Amino acid sequence: MYVIQVVGLKNSGKTTFINQWIRALTVKGLQTATIKHHGHGGDPDLLTNKDSYKHYQAGASITTVIGENQLFMTAEQDKLSFDKILNFYQSLGTDYVFVEGFKKWPLPKIVLVRDSQEDFVNQLENVQLISDGELKSAMHKVEANLDIFTWHEEGGW
Amino acid sequence: MYVIQVVGLKNSGKTTFINQWIRALTVKGLQTATIKHHGHGGDPDLLTNKDSYKHYQAGASITTVIGENQLFMTAEQDKLSFDKILNFYQSLGTDYVFVEGFKKWPLPKIVLVRDSQEDFVNQLENVQLISDGELKSAMHKVEANLDIFTWHEEGGW
Repeated sequence: MYVIQVVGLKNSGKTTFINQWIRALTVKGLQTATIKHHGHGGDPDLLTNKDSYKHYQAGASITTVIGENQLFMTAEQDKLSFDKILNFYQSLGTDYVFVEGFKKWPLPKIVLVRDSQEDFVNQLENVQLISDGELKSAMHKVEANLDIFTWHEEGGW
Repeated sequence: MYVIQVVGLKNSGKTTFINQWIRALTVKGLQTATIKHHGHGGDPDLLTNKDSYKHYQAGASITTVIGENQLFMTAEQDKLSFDKILNFYQSLGTDYVFVEGFKKWPLPKIVLVRDSQEDFVNQLENVQLISDGELKSAMHKVEANLDIFTWHEEGGW
């Protein structure tokens, strides 16, 4: 399973870039997954009128709602380390994980820049590629260096 | 980890019953989790204006959004068997899992009945207790028979 972090300042095109990549991999029959942070601070204000939210309010650490095609899970964040999420993703047969944002995390990362943003880039650890958002060259670079992006169970690259 | 299924006809008080139980266990310092189905057919119509939904639309099988306190995960249902959900719950240190509904599943179950509902009860497999919703006696019965409700990794009871 490969883990590719994509960071960039606001409106640098992270979501679009990742979505194009997901589409390209999906066409190849590969299974992708994503991790991102909630954009505006706080928590997603979802489910507040649902039974699963009542379970959460009562004290449940994790709730899952199973729909016809989709399954929704909520968990207390401190129960779920990044490694545990990745372990779980791997157990489900995921090929590629895209992590959007969390720029302080030392994951092997691609930085999207529009103009010269040296100050931003210099704050980051483990930058593998600085990209202007052109997908093809980014994919090529990653595919030529998959070992850098390979995540090994029990954590670590 | 113990798995307790609670079934009953509509408005039999399943959510209230489970929530009381969750509160009682939380007070004891135990970690609980829940699984329920989406009530009205289809899928929860959440997140449709969010980036994580865009990831899903692009083809991502699983998305996670990390908020300040809560984490929100969506997955294609066919990627995630019940055993995989339980494995995941166990890896997070869950003590008790409450499964609300899914009455056809052969889990060790408690049936909530208001009146005589023999026809309903007779359709069910693995009924361990028929309850009128009085929590204390249900908890007592389960705690005296925890082996029946113990879930073993790799599936099965």
